[in-house]
Amino acid sequence: MGKIAIVGSGAIGTYYGAKLAYGGGDVHFLMRGDLNEVRHNGLSIRGTGEDFRVTKVNCYNSTKEIGPCDLVLIAVKATSNADLVDLIPPLLHERTMLLTLQNGLGNEEFLARHFGPERVLGGLCFICLSRASRTEVERYDLGHILIGEYERKPGERIRALASQFQACELKCEITQDLALDHWRKLVWNIPFNGLSILAGGVDTAAILADEALYRATLALMNEVIEAANKCGHALESTAVLEQIERTRNMGAYKPSTLLDWEAGKPLEIEAIWGEPLRRAVAAGAKAPRLEMIYALLKSLDAKHRSDSRRGTET
Amino acid sequence: MGKIAIVGSGAIGTYYGAKLAYGGGDVHFLMRGDLNEVRHNGLSIRGTGEDFRVTKVNCYNSTKEIGPCDLVLIAVKATSNADLVDLIPPLLHERTMLLTLQNGLGNEEFLARHFGPERVLGGLCFICLSRASRTEVERYDLGHILIGEYERKPGERIRALASQFQACELKCEITQDLALDHWRKLVWNIPFNGLSILAGGVDTAAILADEALYRATLALMNEVIEAANKCGHALESTAVLEQIERTRNMGAYKPSTLLDWEAGKPLEIEAIWGEPLRRAVAAGAKAPRLEMIYALLKSLDAKHRSDSRRGTET
Repeated sequence: MGKIAIVGSGAIGTYYGAKLAYGGGDVHFLMRGDLNEVRHNGLSIRGTGEDFRVTKVNCYNSTKEIGPCDLVLIAVKATSNADLVDLIPPLLHERTMLLTLQNGLGNEEFLARHFGPERVLGGLCFICLSRASRTEVERYDLGHILIGEYERKPGERIRALASQFQACELKCEITQDLALDHWRKLVWNIPFNGLSILAGGVDTAAILADEALYRATLALMNEVIEAANKCGHALESTAVLEQIERTRNMGAYKPSTLLDWEAGKPLEIEAIWGEPLRRAVAAGAKAPRLEMIYALLKSLDAKHRSDSRRGTET
Repeated sequence: MGKIAIVGSGAIGTYYGAKLAYGGGDVHFLMRGDLNEVRHNGLSIRGTGEDFRVTKVNCYNSTKEIGPCDLVLIAVKATSNADLVDLIPPLLHERTMLLTLQNGLGNEEFLARHFGPERVLGGLCFICLSRASRTEVERYDLGHILIGEYERKPGERIRALASQFQACELKCEITQDLALDHWRKLVWNIPFNGLSILAGGVDTAAILADEALYRATLALMNEVIEAANKCGHALESTAVLEQIERTRNMGAYKPSTLLDWEAGKPLEIEAIWGEPLRRAVAAGAKAPRLEMIYALLKSLDAKHRSDSRRGTET
């Protein structure tokens, strides 16, 4: 993998960066407020089957200090993508790979537009993490990462990358069709992330237990599958039951977007709901429920941020 | 009108009862916590073109003390309908009329089931009120009331009632088709009451100004019209633009359900969203957006009440 930069040191960036560093990778973190604490305390990861600490963490205030890398892991919120326009260039040499671990649709396209499509790879993270403190991440679910090439079939470089991830004890698979797997993940993210917030802060178990919400979830999942199909991705209709089954096994889980919402952070509205809706509509799919929850979440998020700016209670 | 009882002394019951009393009606209010204050201070109504006080208010702790009446105005929240089973009987003689001023669908049916359909009339209130205190109601909009017979054409008794209401300076009209006008009112109530809450506490002007919410509103209105039509009510499709026009003229108005929500009161989920949805589905109408907002509001309301019981902040 050579030299690696981690841009975005929330739970996802921290976890994957720490795993790669602990596995012997040459990892360099871009950090802001957490920098001194991480320099001093290192990074700790805790979870079933793993419990380790990276004591010496290379962290920096700017990507200029990091300089050109072979691989950049991008794990900022999609709402901060505009920042990448300035952050990424100092990290680039001719063959630098940009692997985005971000949620939803549109992130690979964003990177391709600014830095060239040939650099871009996408990773779908199936993992439950939370930051216990600035230097500690807890992992609740074994999880795995699915990586793929943006608009190309996987080739040599991604096979090499997957092997190196696996060597660092990351459960990593390669997808033949990144776009299809993005839609497959949205079959879960669109209903559960959205309804958990809109229904008043409820977890996955509460959604499944409420008859009307459960029906709404199934109907939304079917809309997403229809949209994917109309957009040319052969997502099979059995994905609904697979996701429901998977969710039952999770127990009472709070989706990451609900945690963000409860923490007062901005939501990735466009990546998770807006862009899929726009693509669905452009392809002629009917998505009345997705349209409805997009409108509600967008307003809720905007209202929340404007209330916060005014300093009122929300 | 003879002897009148007011059951439910929120803003609606207080306003109409006070108007009838001020106009010389023999009005008797059922009251709970507000009784002593109202006995002491009377009831004050303030609004453009009217500003009056009823100094001597007949109010009672129980309907037994009131005894048989000729007309009972019912203005409790639909969520308290079960209480009516015991409250109403002491007010009845052979020809007592029950006029429900409640929102949504199912209230006339409830009264008909318990007290006989021939007693039941319905009134649709187009008015903006708020209680300034236990003894004061403010009226923001001129408003009018539309009264009709339950599952019968209007006849002599309702014409007499309308005249008497008008004699008390209440702008009152008679509907030939109460069920149709209920659906017509729902064309407004279903989207604006629902979206104002779900979108984070926004008023009508904010809904109209937000492109995605405005589109969702139009689509919901069309669903309600389609449902009404499938249920056999010839609600014309122009109702959408009429309601939008009417709403633009309101300015920035907070729907009553949003005010209830902000005050921590239970919402009339079943009357406004649940019963219309069930009738739509039974009649074979597709109502995906109504289904979605019903599920969300129901969960939100249940969550809110369970959080309140636990005494946590919401």
